[in-house]
Amino acid sequence: MVKTSIYPDELVRLVEDYIDSIQFGEDPAVAPLCEAMRYSLLAGGKRIRPVLLVATGQALGCEPVKLLPTAAAMEMIHTYSLIHDDLPAFDDDELRRGQPTCHVKYGENVAILAGDALFAEAYRLICERQQASPETKMAVIEEISQATGVKGVVGGQMLDIMGGSDDIDSLRLLHSLKTGCLIMACVHCGGMLAGASPSRLQALRGFAAELGLLFQIKDDILDVVGDTAILGKQAGTDARLERSTYVSVYGLEEAGRLALQSKDKALEILRDTGENTGSLAGITNYIYERHQ
Amino acid sequence: MVKTSIYPDELVRLVEDYIDSIQFGEDPAVAPLCEAMRYSLLAGGKRIRPVLLVATGQALGCEPVKLLPTAAAMEMIHTYSLIHDDLPAFDDDELRRGQPTCHVKYGENVAILAGDALFAEAYRLICERQQASPETKMAVIEEISQATGVKGVVGGQMLDIMGGSDDIDSLRLLHSLKTGCLIMACVHCGGMLAGASPSRLQALRGFAAELGLLFQIKDDILDVVGDTAILGKQAGTDARLERSTYVSVYGLEEAGRLALQSKDKALEILRDTGENTGSLAGITNYIYERHQ
Repeated sequence: MVKTSIYPDELVRLVEDYIDSIQFGEDPAVAPLCEAMRYSLLAGGKRIRPVLLVATGQALGCEPVKLLPTAAAMEMIHTYSLIHDDLPAFDDDELRRGQPTCHVKYGENVAILAGDALFAEAYRLICERQQASPETKMAVIEEISQATGVKGVVGGQMLDIMGGSDDIDSLRLLHSLKTGCLIMACVHCGGMLAGASPSRLQALRGFAAELGLLFQIKDDILDVVGDTAILGKQAGTDARLERSTYVSVYGLEEAGRLALQSKDKALEILRDTGENTGSLAGITNYIYERHQ
Repeated sequence: MVKTSIYPDELVRLVEDYIDSIQFGEDPAVAPLCEAMRYSLLAGGKRIRPVLLVATGQALGCEPVKLLPTAAAMEMIHTYSLIHDDLPAFDDDELRRGQPTCHVKYGENVAILAGDALFAEAYRLICERQQASPETKMAVIEEISQATGVKGVVGGQMLDIMGGSDDIDSLRLLHSLKTGCLIMACVHCGGMLAGASPSRLQALRGFAAELGLLFQIKDDILDVVGDTAILGKQAGTDARLERSTYVSVYGLEEAGRLALQSKDKALEILRDTGENTGSLAGITNYIYERHQ
């Protein structure tokens, strides 16, 4: 397990190259919009969501390259949510991945449109480029539509601006909507596109649930102990906005213990799922150990 | 023709009742988000896009009630684009359909999220409720994804904030993206869901192109000659923002002549398409004659 449990950088490169190749529009009239979309989309990062999607397919014996359109669509949706989340009306963040945020660089109006366009183009990419039966593609579209709406990312953002709550149930709901649903969708869509059986899909969803939890706990910990320069975004935003986090509710030590617990559970599910799960284990370890 | 050429108010009622019945989320935690979505969605209007979709189906012998999920989705997408377009970073409009705009009533952050959520939920509605083969549903989703992205609504909004241009080609491009694509998508999706033949679809697209043009010319005329109280939105916004419009480029009289020309072309295509096109003719006449 040790040898295969590192982050799959070869999948990152595959995803990066594919994302870089996407042309949103050739018309020079809309060039500034496409530039803003690409600016945020190509700002780097570990591409956890698309890599998770192709690694899930890989675990089921599907060639990663066959899943790239849907994987890229997930990164586009994630980027759209970050752009809107950084706006002055929300977190008012000026840095993202070490660069000025989209609205700082292009203005608020262009940033809002760049987010809107990335969301729309994500669907178009799947429709036009993803090879799969119409039934499977519809299942993928349906999963994404659930993960991005009121019962997904946007619902989570709403809970966030309402200030969340100090009780753990509300906190879990917020994070499962804001972060967990899209991570779940990546794993589930990767599984469906690779032709996973219902029982295998069920196991993968259990894995994704632990991974989403782990991801958020680490995010909260890093907002407290992280360094703005290494994070590439402002540390201390949660405290500044008086947000409930796993750290504010449980304290730093207990939050660390909860993160370890979720990591172990996720890896345990992978061991039971068997086969080619090295990349998925590597992603899990990376999320647990990351400093940014 | 005279008797059947009035606006199909019975289809408006059908659409209104269906939209009113949609539940976006039961969780009380996201209730304020759902309230903002419903506030903008239920603010009235003639429901031209969804009515156009069901009327197209009706012209091809399909029961309007069978097309309501996709019709409602189109109205949700239209509402999402209006909410974002009204924001301070865009037109900074305070009135829409005679009511305070979404951001005036709920704040900028909730308004941005309400728009985002309506877009996501539009896809979910089609996925979960529209009865059709997976092939047809995928074709509908693909058409919508094209009409809403860089080569559709958002691309048009981008051209708009860049100030458009004084030449007619740029103006036509702006409007065909911002308004025309969604009107085209309504007609095309209504046709596909009703099982239209390729040649019939082609004719319907010609009709939709004229209707989209007519719609925009009338919009520009009304922004000059309309009354804020009757329009339900601020008149004079185009002039205030120094935007190119059909009126600023052609003058009021010539713009009126162009509108008449498009109306006549649209009705001519309908006559050649034959059969049950009374509602579509009624919509065309209404758009030509409307005062709001």
